[in-house]
Amino acid sequence: MAADETVAGFLDGLASEQPTPGGGGAAAISGAMGAALVSMVCNLTIGKKKYAEVEAEMTEARARSEALRRQLTGMIAEDVAAFTAVMAAYGLPKGSDAEKEARRAAIQGALREATDVPLACARACRAVIDLCEGVARQGNLNVISDAGVAVLSAQAGLRSAALNVLVNARAMEDRAFAQERLAELDRLLAGADALTERVYDVVRAKLT
Amino acid sequence: MAADETVAGFLDGLASEQPTPGGGGAAAISGAMGAALVSMVCNLTIGKKKYAEVEAEMTEARARSEALRRQLTGMIAEDVAAFTAVMAAYGLPKGSDAEKEARRAAIQGALREATDVPLACARACRAVIDLCEGVARQGNLNVISDAGVAVLSAQAGLRSAALNVLVNARAMEDRAFAQERLAELDRLLAGADALTERVYDVVRAKLT
Repeated sequence: MAADETVAGFLDGLASEQPTPGGGGAAAISGAMGAALVSMVCNLTIGKKKYAEVEAEMTEARARSEALRRQLTGMIAEDVAAFTAVMAAYGLPKGSDAEKEARRAAIQGALREATDVPLACARACRAVIDLCEGVARQGNLNVISDAGVAVLSAQAGLRSAALNVLVNARAMEDRAFAQERLAELDRLLAGADALTERVYDVVRAKLT
Repeated sequence: MAADETVAGFLDGLASEQPTPGGGGAAAISGAMGAALVSMVCNLTIGKKKYAEVEAEMTEARARSEALRRQLTGMIAEDVAAFTAVMAAYGLPKGSDAEKEARRAAIQGALREATDVPLACARACRAVIDLCEGVARQGNLNVISDAGVAVLSAQAGLRSAALNVLVNARAMEDRAFAQERLAELDRLLAGADALTERVYDVVRAKLT
């Protein structure tokens, strides 16, 4: 499963009893939809006479949102790979002491990656949220509701990715590694909900 | 564009300056991902000895989440069709008085559908949120983070769909029709954020 699957096929896989794709892939898609909608608002603002004053900001925002969209789209497959590696490590033989030790090391190695992939997703989603305020304030009024959908999608992506960081970090023996990731996660979450509500309010005020 | 497009293709379309797909399609996908993840948690709970006590509830929840997933997946294309009809109506000739009147009527007719599609999306997303609490409390602990992602995705879908209802309802001349839709929307939004936070807290508590 990756971004070249159909939307319906991805949803079938998500609903199935197969362990992948799961919440991590959904988080990446939420973030990527947020980034894509930021790009859409920028695309429909750039080149319009009425919005000539904000053209530079919109062009800058679009460059960032498109880079974030590429990253987040790639994370759909990265999440599957990281989760599959964890499952494979848990499936290793544990007969002898040497096997047990090899299995333990493999699990811990796989958990690092399975923590870092959703952390990178959270980081990218937070960056999308940060882009939304300017776009909601300055973007083309005809598509301003899309700036609102952008921030809501990115927020869902951030908070969803956070759950996946928590799940994997708690199983790690290297507590220093885990604590460092959890500390970054706290920084990414800090203020994100308040900012989302501020952007949502900006959009709602323009719609009424 | 519909659910048979690839994920990457949908995201490209979302980011482009083409008016469809837009935030309405993103809302439907968010809701469908939420429904799919409810189904996933149910699928990984049903048939497990440890969870035999909640098997009936999980089977019931899965039947509902799968029906909601089908509805929400179909709404991706319905949103495109409704939006396209509105654009086409605005594009009708407005030379003579008769043309102006025909155009006005066509716009108003298209706006009804363009209000009812996101309202139906909001209704389905709220139903997904309502399903999540039981699933988060009773579902298989190994995939409980997916119940958290489910509620966050459905919440983003609900609030995103709400923006699209507002956009179209405000342009409607039939104020009674518009007010009725806005009143239902208020009922769907009421308590949804508080319920989402409650489910999120249930999940987080199980992860720490």
